Amino acid sequence: MPKFQLPSGFIEYTPEEQVKFNYILDTIREEYEHAGFAPIETASIGYSEVILAKAGGELDKEIYRFQKGDRDLSLRFDLTVPLARYIAEHNRNMVLPAKIYQIGKSWRAEKPQKGRYRELYQADIDIIGNNSRLAEAEMLSVIQNVFAILELPAITFRVSNRKILAGLLDSYGITDIASILRIVDKKAKLSEADWIQALRDIQTPDLAIDTLLSLFENGKNNQEIGKLLQQQNIDNNLYQEGIQELEEFVKYLELFHVKSYVIDISIVRGQDYYTGTVFESFLAGLESFGSICSGGRYDNLVGHYIDTPITGFGASIGVSRLFGILREQDWFQEIQYGDTTKIGVFLLNEDTVEDDIKSIIALRDEQGIAFDLYPEITNFKKALQYANRKNYTEAIFFGADEAKAGEVLIKNMESGEQVIVLVGDLGEIE
Amino acid sequence: MPKFQLPSGFIEYTPEEQVKFNYILDTIREEYEHAGFAPIETASIGYSEVILAKAGGELDKEIYRFQKGDRDLSLRFDLTVPLARYIAEHNRNMVLPAKIYQIGKSWRAEKPQKGRYRELYQADIDIIGNNSRLAEAEMLSVIQNVFAILELPAITFRVSNRKILAGLLDSYGITDIASILRIVDKKAKLSEADWIQALRDIQTPDLAIDTLLSLFENGKNNQEIGKLLQQQNIDNNLYQEGIQELEEFVKYLELFHVKSYVIDISIVRGQDYYTGTVFESFLAGLESFGSICSGGRYDNLVGHYIDTPITGFGASIGVSRLFGILREQDWFQEIQYGDTTKIGVFLLNEDTVEDDIKSIIALRDEQGIAFDLYPEITNFKKALQYANRKNYTEAIFFGADEAKAGEVLIKNMESGEQVIVLVGDLGEIE
Repeated sequence: MPKFQLPSGFIEYTPEEQVKFNYILDTIREEYEHAGFAPIETASIGYSEVILAKAGGELDKEIYRFQKGDRDLSLRFDLTVPLARYIAEHNRNMVLPAKIYQIGKSWRAEKPQKGRYRELYQADIDIIGNNSRLAEAEMLSVIQNVFAILELPAITFRVSNRKILAGLLDSYGITDIASILRIVDKKAKLSEADWIQALRDIQTPDLAIDTLLSLFENGKNNQEIGKLLQQQNIDNNLYQEGIQELEEFVKYLELFHVKSYVIDISIVRGQDYYTGTVFESFLAGLESFGSICSGGRYDNLVGHYIDTPITGFGASIGVSRLFGILREQDWFQEIQYGDTTKIGVFLLNEDTVEDDIKSIIALRDEQGIAFDLYPEITNFKKALQYANRKNYTEAIFFGADEAKAGEVLIKNMESGEQVIVLVGDLGEIE
Repeated sequence: MPKFQLPSGFIEYTPEEQVKFNYILDTIREEYEHAGFAPIETASIGYSEVILAKAGGELDKEIYRFQKGDRDLSLRFDLTVPLARYIAEHNRNMVLPAKIYQIGKSWRAEKPQKGRYRELYQADIDIIGNNSRLAEAEMLSVIQNVFAILELPAITFRVSNRKILAGLLDSYGITDIASILRIVDKKAKLSEADWIQALRDIQTPDLAIDTLLSLFENGKNNQEIGKLLQQQNIDNNLYQEGIQELEEFVKYLELFHVKSYVIDISIVRGQDYYTGTVFESFLAGLESFGSICSGGRYDNLVGHYIDTPITGFGASIGVSRLFGILREQDWFQEIQYGDTTKIGVFLLNEDTVEDDIKSIIALRDEQGIAFDLYPEITNFKKALQYANRKNYTEAIFFGADEAKAGEVLIKNMESGEQVIVLVGDLGEIE
């Protein structure tokens, strides 16, 4: 392998791409703050026993875990578990309910595949210390706004409540509900036959499998699914609670103008820590890339670390995956590096460099004009070549032959037009 | 240990602190972009043989290194080595010279101590493919601006050129120059006796030690050090080149209005990859916290990965260390969370919630007013308590007893004054 290779599954962008990526992060952050969410940043590394708590499922294998000295450490695999840890430590000094946002990287040694990275950016909003459908719906409306401001294809949320399936399975006397829900989570990735076999492999009763199949059947609208859930006549408190919460959630989605949602009982999310409302979301025409914003309620997660249970609900935008899609489709062409620095500045004359730098510093620091100063004294030909390659709109030359002392030559790089201007008038070039 | 403990050396901030930390990051980023630097973000993890290249010194022991599958991986310990790797991979598609900035985390398992963290934020600017003192000085002027904009105590740069000591030691016939420079780098941390002993332990000739001691003697001004360097009469090209580059660097520092610098030949930086100009910097009155921005020239680093040598120079602000200092001293009190969200909004009446949410959404999305919506329907007393604890300047109550349909109650949380306002007029409350 070449000595500079990145491990597979890791990605770096060109500066031009990075500007677009940062634009997405900035937009998300601005919208999160606009809706009253406050920032925190959790540590990337934690004790393995803390990080691995409640991960469950496939995730254990995907975690970067290592010893340092006598410590068993892991890189975080999401932003929710570290948040729960943070809340466990700090809740006594916090005003609850608290709206929090976090934007940062997580690491998962997943099999590298399209849109999946081993180092991934997520942008999460969470509400801690509150269990209301109103807040859940408000958060989805914030997510919807982010995608609208980014002018992306319409987002559709697929929503459910984990209590429905948990209650259903409980009513069949099943105890290891988590294992079945993990297989439910894989439904989209397996053929129906393989999926049924996977359920049978862990002794799921055929009656339960049949009910799951009927609930997951495609082509039903939200009303039909609602009716179907009621018709099951399942006498189970958790099941009834799940239905009631889902109805309430849907009511608030409507109130918060989140019009594009689909009830999909097969949505359970992969992590075992989810307890109530869960959702995934897809962009119109880009559904095959998978969910680009997911989340749910995790009312027992903080309670894993401390004796006081503290409720939580979170929504997470998978920014790396999202950008992977958009990058491939050449989105955000209008967002370019150089919006503030389309101007190149060149020094052509050793003899006048002292005065020239004085003028340049005044331009940059006093007049607040952003530009890219070429890093050494050069000649006109070389400067022009560089200015062309950098796509400057304007190049300013100090010490050009055509200009007298106190003057500069400005070249419009698009029209080719050249003008001589007094240095003192440069502040007005923009 | 409590189940939620962070490993030692790791730190997380409260939301109030995080806002100040983000303010520092934002200011740095804005100033870097203003001066024409383009963003990239390098991967946090790399193959160990790539990450460990040229680290040298104590760093090897401090690196988080682990196996995943059959891969030998490490977390990056700085932003410079990953940048060199990035340039090695991408230079054919880049316009050189290139001005690049990177803001991100690195990890070092250093002994935890005041101002040192195992997860640390750095904010780097680099110029790639250029070897001029002009660019080096320009970059220090950008750093100086960052600290001026943050209104921090005056920054003083301690500058040198590694070629001077490397040439000096070479003139004494010494071959393992890197080992001696690593001990030179520890001068501030050791007593003079221990420091001399450490040099003798690796067979440094006494004559060389004496010369080092005379060059490092405190209390000399820049002119006196310059004279002292000339007086050594050392017939060594590298030494003479170092002196010449340092003189040129100092000339450009003056031209770029970087007035506060001290020539200090004992500055060599800990990493073996530095080759020319090197610097550290200290804030007035806060010198004991150590250097808060350091860097230097690394002309052989990219060449470690590919056959083409590509020059580089970088400056790195240690943002975590800087914030550690400022946090302890209670800086940035005026930067507070809530600059955009000092308004709390409360729903008090189940019966009017439909219309109320409609108004709230219009306020947030159409009129662009930022506020914090309390996550559930509540009562006036509870709402007031919450509003007080959150330090809102204003609280808006929908469905208050005093207000008729289409009206809201607004309470100024500082004066206690209450007014009834038409919902339609809310857009003007700011």
